[in-house]
Amino acid sequence: MVTKVHPKLKEPVEAENWTDGIEQPLALMDQIEEDIASTAELANHSVVSARQFSRVQLIQLCRLAAKFETQQSFGQFPLTGKILISAFYEPSTRTRLSFESVWQRLGGDIISITDPSTTGIAKGESLKDIAEMMNHYGDVVVLRDSNEAAIYEMLEATRIPIINAGNGTDEHPTQALADMYAILKWRPELVMDKVNDEHKITIGIIGNPGRMRTVRSLLLFLAQISPAITEVVIISNSTDSFDEGQREELEAEGLTIRTSSELEPELPNFDVVYINAIAWVGNSYEEHGAEYKLSKASPLKKGAIILHPLARGEELSSDLDDTEHNWYFAQARGAVFARMALMSSLVRF
Amino acid sequence: MVTKVHPKLKEPVEAENWTDGIEQPLALMDQIEEDIASTAELANHSVVSARQFSRVQLIQLCRLAAKFETQQSFGQFPLTGKILISAFYEPSTRTRLSFESVWQRLGGDIISITDPSTTGIAKGESLKDIAEMMNHYGDVVVLRDSNEAAIYEMLEATRIPIINAGNGTDEHPTQALADMYAILKWRPELVMDKVNDEHKITIGIIGNPGRMRTVRSLLLFLAQISPAITEVVIISNSTDSFDEGQREELEAEGLTIRTSSELEPELPNFDVVYINAIAWVGNSYEEHGAEYKLSKASPLKKGAIILHPLARGEELSSDLDDTEHNWYFAQARGAVFARMALMSSLVRF
Amino acid sequence: MVTKVHPKLKEPVEAENWTDGIEQPLALMDQIEEDIASTAELANHSVVSARQFSRVQLIQLCRLAAKFETQQSFGQFPLTGKILISAFYEPSTRTRLSFESVWQRLGGDIISITDPSTTGIAKGESLKDIAEMMNHYGDVVVLRDSNEAAIYEMLEATRIPIINAGNGTDEHPTQALADMYAILKWRPELVMDKVNDEHKITIGIIGNPGRMRTVRSLLLFLAQISPAITEVVIISNSTDSFDEGQREELEAEGLTIRTSSELEPELPNFDVVYINAIAWVGNSYEEHGAEYKLSKASPLKKGAIILHPLARGEELSSDLDDTEHNWYFAQARGAVFARMALMSSLVRF
Repeated sequence: MVTKVHPKLKEPVEAENWTDGIEQPLALMDQIEEDIASTAELANHSVVSARQFSRVQLIQLCRLAAKFETQQSFGQFPLTGKILISAFYEPSTRTRLSFESVWQRLGGDIISITDPSTTGIAKGESLKDIAEMMNHYGDVVVLRDSNEAAIYEMLEATRIPIINAGNGTDEHPTQALADMYAILKWRPELVMDKVNDEHKITIGIIGNPGRMRTVRSLLLFLAQISPAITEVVIISNSTDSFDEGQREELEAEGLTIRTSSELEPELPNFDVVYINAIAWVGNSYEEHGAEYKLSKASPLKKGAIILHPLARGEELSSDLDDTEHNWYFAQARGAVFARMALMSSLVRF
Repeated sequence: MVTKVHPKLKEPVEAENWTDGIEQPLALMDQIEEDIASTAELANHSVVSARQFSRVQLIQLCRLAAKFETQQSFGQFPLTGKILISAFYEPSTRTRLSFESVWQRLGGDIISITDPSTTGIAKGESLKDIAEMMNHYGDVVVLRDSNEAAIYEMLEATRIPIINAGNGTDEHPTQALADMYAILKWRPELVMDKVNDEHKITIGIIGNPGRMRTVRSLLLFLAQISPAITEVVIISNSTDSFDEGQREELEAEGLTIRTSSELEPELPNFDVVYINAIAWVGNSYEEHGAEYKLSKASPLKKGAIILHPLARGEELSSDLDDTEHNWYFAQARGAVFARMALMSSLVRF
Repeated sequence: MVTKVHPKLKEPVEAENWTDGIEQPLALMDQIEEDIASTAELANHSVVSARQFSRVQLIQLCRLAAKFETQQSFGQFPLTGKILISAFYEPSTRTRLSFESVWQRLGGDIISITDPSTTGIAKGESLKDIAEMMNHYGDVVVLRDSNEAAIYEMLEATRIPIINAGNGTDEHPTQALADMYAILKWRPELVMDKVNDEHKITIGIIGNPGRMRTVRSLLLFLAQISPAITEVVIISNSTDSFDEGQREELEAEGLTIRTSSELEPELPNFDVVYINAIAWVGNSYEEHGAEYKLSKASPLKKGAIILHPLARGEELSSDLDDTEHNWYFAQARGAVFARMALMSSLVRF
């Protein structure tokens, strides 16, 4: 009967065959001098916005992520006995599983709320009361809520750190941290205070900064490495893709921003192409820029990388998966280590 | 950009600023002589009704809860390798998360059933067969079911302890244990065999003892400290708020009970005011006494405490949260330790 | 009040009173010489089909299951720090809880997906992308999907072992492993290379091999012990209960198969009666052979055992529970240990 067995089942899975090796994370560690004090300042803080992090903290978190990525085992289980409250009031798998995996890899336990219809919210309970309850049941809260304001309401009543895992169209700072880690492990020299013009990069963002929380948070982080960026080009067919004051804030921080409605002519200039076609709004989503698509046939610059927060739709063809441009799988893998760096910094042992 | 960051995000969360300190739990421990034998008798027992507990067991469980509340860490993880089956066939967050948090704080693991539509029940499986299955998969079951009889059916087939986390309109003994712990840590002297008249308390219960499982279980426990109670006044606009024989049983145990349909004239006499406006019936709920409301403007006795099983609705105004009458947050916090006391007594290590 | 307490609540639960003792597992261990090398070969392999296992591996897994069943404690927690991704895209409780219990008993942690509507699949994500994600978040995946092909699609992209917990009408190899363990612990001598005619058994299977995944996988395993089987009789009122080539494949492996549409005349000849009335097809199920029913009144052979994968419906009367024919509870209990044997063999420590 053995002849009928699927060939994949006859051999062990190849655990070693990762999307990327550990060379890039090691190179990033070499580039950055460790500064434990800067991440130690994060202990017991809530995380709602990418605005909270200093340039040094951002870079040190990426260094710590690299440290985790290069370790075979996490050994000591520093979070043993600590409980994460995983509260996802909006559909999610990737982000939820990522946080839950990270927390458990560090030794902690989890209590989950995945369905608002089974919760006190169904009984009309206030967010403040829910926050009060969470104080007693866990050590950290991870919250996703389609209502932008929810996390700010809960912040008033929580006495344990609360982490924003996506609040409506506002922010998604841990995804943006993963994005930054992906960029920096690709080109560690971008963390330098002064970057030569020939090493500066051009970043194309296919998406809507005023509607997409991932893009909003990413831009705030990119402003922290503006010395390394020639230009950020927003590809959008919308005439008002920024919220009021959003572009001005970023430019004040030193970021050079341009908008364009044409992808093809711009693409050959991008060193990094970030693409996303969905904005989560309330309990549904909007599509943005469905006409912008990337595939093997796209005129991508040699050596350019593509980033996508995933899950992807038709905007990003799977025929790119086996090309040098696929850095989105490395980004997905790195998201685990970026969150590990953040979580382990937030909890005071 | 730092100027735009929410002020709450700039400082660490204040983990120390609890609703209440450890003075009251310590006072309760001082008041009661430890009697380990009485709680040891609970090992491997199922818990369905508040009727099961002797006066000594009730008091010793509250003492053990106080012991847990005064400990910074639970250290030894006595439940390592033990599995809790968390079976909530009726919407719940507070109670479920409370049990799951407690179990994990003690080192145990959890398998959960939160949605009956994903279970064997959807295939028409009998409760007896489900109980038989649970024997093999876990060490303790926590069950919430809108059908009063379900836990009794499962009791016939389980060979591991099963705990009632609310069975329809019948009982909710662990909530009542948390209520008792809240009362006793407020006034430790109430546990004395003989209480002077001037120290006795009057308790007002705004709710329906025949329809509300929390009230039913609480009254059974209050009967155990009847020497400390001048009177229990049931505030209800229903003419038949007791089940058949319920009032007689409680009076036979020594509880003095009076009913009234007026809240305002009675309120100034209450040392403890217990309020709840919802009774869970089948897959829905009934409102009771929606016209009875407590707020800062209510004529509460000086020093009186308010208890509420939460989640609350309009019956309990949040303007009371910052007053001396708010003991419901202390009660919510104590629920964790009350359940910790019970669970650690049930499992034989 | 004590007189009103349910009698079951006055005594501790009888943890010792198992369906079966440890005599049978011990006898099975005595019958089989340990061969660690054969199960070690399974390390890091995915498990999709019963076809993957050699006769030696099947028998050694049953031996290892017996070893686990005879142990009071699992002591060392070999899976500490390992994460199981429990992905059930089709309703299940038994199988899911069984895997989750086993994994935690061995010290591991779990991240769960129980509701496809809360997942990336709802966003139209490809199975390949989901598999790619899982590589980063866990160490083993358990998958149930009503689509037969899903697990094969995911196999292309996973670099961690993936275990089939039921794929549509195709296979359910771990249930069949549990079935085999139930049969072998009942009659350990069936594992012998040569079985005397008087010790050979006749097996009746009330069900549809071409539609029921449990039956399909079981038949593949039974073929591995064909020297011990006189005949397998399929009881079905369908004229085409086999898939194309299915019967031929089994017969080529040495199994003698006969079909019959009459249960009553055949029943007195069966040593083992396997019964199941439900086939999972897409998001619903088909009933098969609803007219075939077993009860205390059925003409069962003395000493014959009944097996059922559970949950059961009307096809298997609960009046058989207290008879010698009830081996389905022993089978359910053994399923935990059979999966423990498999999981601990798959993960390389």
